[in-house]
Amino acid sequence: MKKKLKELAEFVGGTVVGDGEVEITGVGPIEGARPGEITFIAHPKFLSKLSETAASAVIVSPEITQAKQSLLSVKNPQLAFAKILTLYTSQPYQPKGIDSRSWISPSAQLGKELTIYPFVYVGDRCRIGDRVTLYPGVYVGEEASIGEDSILYSNVSVHDRTAIGKRVILYSGVVVGSDGFGYVKDGKKNVKIPQVGWVEIEDDVEIGANTTIDRAAFGKTDLRRGVKIDNLAQIAHNVVVGEDSIIVAQVGIAGSTKIGSNVTLGGQVGIVDHIEVGDNVMVAAQAGVMHNLPPNQVYSGGPAIPHRENLKMVAALSKLPEMKKILNEIEKRLKKIEETLSSGGKEK
Amino acid sequence: MKKKLKELAEFVGGTVVGDGEVEITGVGPIEGARPGEITFIAHPKFLSKLSETAASAVIVSPEITQAKQSLLSVKNPQLAFAKILTLYTSQPYQPKGIDSRSWISPSAQLGKELTIYPFVYVGDRCRIGDRVTLYPGVYVGEEASIGEDSILYSNVSVHDRTAIGKRVILYSGVVVGSDGFGYVKDGKKNVKIPQVGWVEIEDDVEIGANTTIDRAAFGKTDLRRGVKIDNLAQIAHNVVVGEDSIIVAQVGIAGSTKIGSNVTLGGQVGIVDHIEVGDNVMVAAQAGVMHNLPPNQVYSGGPAIPHRENLKMVAALSKLPEMKKILNEIEKRLKKIEETLSSGGKEK
Amino acid sequence: MKKKLKELAEFVGGTVVGDGEVEITGVGPIEGARPGEITFIAHPKFLSKLSETAASAVIVSPEITQAKQSLLSVKNPQLAFAKILTLYTSQPYQPKGIDSRSWISPSAQLGKELTIYPFVYVGDRCRIGDRVTLYPGVYVGEEASIGEDSILYSNVSVHDRTAIGKRVILYSGVVVGSDGFGYVKDGKKNVKIPQVGWVEIEDDVEIGANTTIDRAAFGKTDLRRGVKIDNLAQIAHNVVVGEDSIIVAQVGIAGSTKIGSNVTLGGQVGIVDHIEVGDNVMVAAQAGVMHNLPPNQVYSGGPAIPHRENLKMVAALSKLPEMKKILNEIEKRLKKIEETLSSGGKEK
Repeated sequence: MKKKLKELAEFVGGTVVGDGEVEITGVGPIEGARPGEITFIAHPKFLSKLSETAASAVIVSPEITQAKQSLLSVKNPQLAFAKILTLYTSQPYQPKGIDSRSWISPSAQLGKELTIYPFVYVGDRCRIGDRVTLYPGVYVGEEASIGEDSILYSNVSVHDRTAIGKRVILYSGVVVGSDGFGYVKDGKKNVKIPQVGWVEIEDDVEIGANTTIDRAAFGKTDLRRGVKIDNLAQIAHNVVVGEDSIIVAQVGIAGSTKIGSNVTLGGQVGIVDHIEVGDNVMVAAQAGVMHNLPPNQVYSGGPAIPHRENLKMVAALSKLPEMKKILNEIEKRLKKIEETLSSGGKEK
Repeated sequence: MKKKLKELAEFVGGTVVGDGEVEITGVGPIEGARPGEITFIAHPKFLSKLSETAASAVIVSPEITQAKQSLLSVKNPQLAFAKILTLYTSQPYQPKGIDSRSWISPSAQLGKELTIYPFVYVGDRCRIGDRVTLYPGVYVGEEASIGEDSILYSNVSVHDRTAIGKRVILYSGVVVGSDGFGYVKDGKKNVKIPQVGWVEIEDDVEIGANTTIDRAAFGKTDLRRGVKIDNLAQIAHNVVVGEDSIIVAQVGIAGSTKIGSNVTLGGQVGIVDHIEVGDNVMVAAQAGVMHNLPPNQVYSGGPAIPHRENLKMVAALSKLPEMKKILNEIEKRLKKIEETLSSGGKEK
Repeated sequence: MKKKLKELAEFVGGTVVGDGEVEITGVGPIEGARPGEITFIAHPKFLSKLSETAASAVIVSPEITQAKQSLLSVKNPQLAFAKILTLYTSQPYQPKGIDSRSWISPSAQLGKELTIYPFVYVGDRCRIGDRVTLYPGVYVGEEASIGEDSILYSNVSVHDRTAIGKRVILYSGVVVGSDGFGYVKDGKKNVKIPQVGWVEIEDDVEIGANTTIDRAAFGKTDLRRGVKIDNLAQIAHNVVVGEDSIIVAQVGIAGSTKIGSNVTLGGQVGIVDHIEVGDNVMVAAQAGVMHNLPPNQVYSGGPAIPHRENLKMVAALSKLPEMKKILNEIEKRLKKIEETLSSGGKEK
């Protein structure tokens, strides 16, 4: 693909500083970009890198007004970069049809222009939307539905009655709709509580490799529109994750907990069951959330508390061995003073 | 299915308060239950919900003696609920036979009434018990055995010589019997220690999606009768988990550690190698267990200590920045006193 | 296999103490070894076990010079044991050919003496080296390459353009080359940043079951020669792991972080993005690494600090409730002294 810089500026709603006629043939990172490519810098502090890159044009924020290259000036350079990169790298969808080595139930309802690779299993009464892609080893259980333009990569398992929206991406090894972890003790014996609910994955959700999403005990586990989950996360039964929330790798969310919209959970965060995390909350990596978190704040630590308080605590913690020493010393000085006083106020 | 309430009471060993003739057609959660359904409340504190539910009957503990609905009074309402829910939702097993798209070794010993889906691989000299179900993408290595009535969901891998008991459930993506993580340094180079042991999974064990159970270096990794493991947990080589223990999601247990019976490990707990966790121990979520844990106690924190001590420590921790301030202040006051004393005992 | 003890001593560069003619027919652990077998003890402190084992010979370090059995004396007994165990247990490779139930692209370049099981998918323009083994359910995307003598166990997914070296082992459920987790906010909406890079896995790397390795945004995610990774770890886009490093189960490494060579990361460690961990570093289990770590040291804690400092801090922490008490008491004593002094230096 070839576009003039001025065309790209128009595409992302930015303006050109310098030569808008320069032809852009590709997109690259600041260090590795080659002549003809466009790159970006996320922040004026990386300004010095502009002189080193071989890129023919650079997407920058409006503070930057001068460079040896042509500039594409735009409020959010990273977003503009993502859009232009998508423009240059996305391929038009080309259906490959249904491979005869797959097994598709005769009772499944199939959309148009599908791509179904070998060794795919589609169960009874499933509904598969138009232009869905199912890679090798995908398993789709009975009465599951998959919305149009969704992609399920190799070895994904989608269990009975799961409802998947449009433009969803499930990466390899994802498991959706296996039983929630519910037992009740009968003496010492664990008696299984049947998990008769289901999972709903709404439009534009993406789920990372080997992440697991359990079906609800009753009702549904619900990942709302635009949720993005990284690899190896665990979403337990009846959890709700609000729109546009971001869940980083290896997070675990226990049963029935409700995550608000536009939340960000850092890597390896753990959240207990039956609590609520408010909208726009950010939780730092490895935090352990044990209580409801009010909205619009940043939390960290285990147990998770407001991030500023936690920072103070961590700072104090690093002083702890020193504090202990000081405390010992104070006790000695105090004892000495008390002896002085008891002996009539004069120092020995 | 339709049962009279008095029949259900008899089934779970409870008694009816109110009309025992009411016909129960299903089971529901307290909020969503419909007329004709039975529900339960776990605790008298949820009593207020009784007036809101549309359920025709409610399973309650004996403290509750009055409601607008008929009551099924029983010592452990949740257990009774699980049993009744199982009664209403479990389907009689119907074998589907062996799909011709699978590959079954001619030397495998096959039980009766199997369900083997397409794309299943069963290796040489395996033994598959009666009424076993193998979903698409299951791999069973050589000389593995699977006891009767067990279910292996899609894309499960069971490696050579693994022994699986009766009524075991392995959820999608579980890996049993891949090599333990054993290396010895030769200078900086890592030399692999062959893992020549195996895994035994005893009767009534259930293992959650994408959990991994490594084969032993020598001898066996052993999950005893009734153990229940959640998703994405890691059980290393030569670990033993005692009967009826519960392991929540994302727990990691390092090599050769022995977990007692009736233990509960909370989510994301990590346990070091070569230690012992006593019977009936509970370990709170995210704890890091670094030493043997005596039986019959609750532990939390990292490193894990008795839960009460940890609670005190966490409480003290939150006061730490304040303590630091107080300490600074004390030092000043102390200095002032010492100056006073050294100048003859009088304040300046 | 049968070897004389003196032959084994020669094989591992050790010396025999006692009868070098004794015939060794197998290898066993100290507790379970049978007559005819050789075993080892890792440390003189396990000396007492020598009298209990039925093994016919024991590999020991040079400090041990006497026992009822014949001894094989060598500087690193565990290493010698690993080598002898490999000698006794490794089978010569026997190619099984390409099963007709697999799907191999006509444009794939295939080496000699392959073992490709049923239900394997090999995409367009892949290169598969000599003596490669692909177990059932393996997916190899377009233009991926797999070096000679590598083994991919069941249900492994290797995505487009991944480059895998020689003698690599990927255990069941491993996912290599799925998209890195990169989004940029457009208001609240998450816009995907295309991940156009790839993954390189160099020679002699081994990756544990269900571990995930993401493709780079640009350029490559790189696991260098001899890296060993345990189960359920997460390696994000553009991470580099240096030669011979060891990564234990459930570790998470965030984007663009560089791990040095000969590093050891304990179980469940989390490491933030864009930092560097120096050569020969060891990080204790469950630590949270938030800053660059200089080489050749041991770190622990969250946030991770030098291990000795962390030990002091943890020790101080356990005294914290007591410190708080002491502090309260000191304040009282101080107040009393101040009152004494203000009333003229005499005690009341």
